[in-house]
Amino acid sequence: MHRSFMPGLMVAAGLAVLLTSTPAAAQFAKPEDAIRYRKAGMTMMNAHLGRVAAMVSGRAPFDAKAVADNVEIATLLSKLPYAGFIEGTDKGDTQALPRIWTEMDKFRAAAAKMQEEMAKLNAAAKTGNVDAIKTAVGATGQSCKACHDSYRKE
Amino acid sequence: MHRSFMPGLMVAAGLAVLLTSTPAAAQFAKPEDAIRYRKAGMTMMNAHLGRVAAMVSGRAPFDAKAVADNVEIATLLSKLPYAGFIEGTDKGDTQALPRIWTEMDKFRAAAAKMQEEMAKLNAAAKTGNVDAIKTAVGATGQSCKACHDSYRKE
Repeated sequence: MHRSFMPGLMVAAGLAVLLTSTPAAAQFAKPEDAIRYRKAGMTMMNAHLGRVAAMVSGRAPFDAKAVADNVEIATLLSKLPYAGFIEGTDKGDTQALPRIWTEMDKFRAAAAKMQEEMAKLNAAAKTGNVDAIKTAVGATGQSCKACHDSYRKE
Repeated sequence: MHRSFMPGLMVAAGLAVLLTSTPAAAQFAKPEDAIRYRKAGMTMMNAHLGRVAAMVSGRAPFDAKAVADNVEIATLLSKLPYAGFIEGTDKGDTQALPRIWTEMDKFRAAAAKMQEEMAKLNAAAKTGNVDAIKTAVGATGQSCKACHDSYRKE
């Protein structure tokens, strides 16, 4: 990996460690707080990735710096929402399917897959190579879709 | 400033630059997307800072690492919501007061003040010094409150 990619990835890696090492149950006072938090994280990630998708698909002018900046933020955000999928948050104002909690390991693996593809996209975005970015956006989008298809209500 | 504080602050500084240099109007397809985005950012910032406030006030056991981790994330998040206060987003599902748009410079200054206090809190959190953290949490909370008092509906 190229040296100039490191700072952002180091922060992302750091966040990953802290979020798996912090006891999840202690993080939210009420189940609805956890639901609101994870939805907020998805909303923000979607906003930043959506801009990148628009540029890559030609719906917006391609701007390599804007791509890199938005992917950097999306990569940081990609670590956050999963802390909100705690016990007791399968009901309420959520599109999350109950099977998340009956197959949490598979759900976590699907989330990790997305985070991995996002990290690759982050590396590609820093190169400015349009083809590499397109490929990585596609793979990241697929990983989002795979998790939504399995674990989110229509 | 101590060297070990730098990576997170560098990222935070980088985000600040990119968010002021990206044309805000191009970032959201619809006004309601901008509103949803900024509210999501506030929700997430509040979640992470709320944990810190609970630890500092004795409502939760003090854990220096959890404080530092949460403040680091809150500092990154503190740069994000303001991109959503674009023209045409004074109406809709928002608590934002219309005077934000008639005195945008003052609003931006209030946001910058919060980001500055948050950066100081981030530095304090990395020292693990409880008194310094308490003081910085107080100052950060004041800067949140000042902006909410002026620019947010009850």
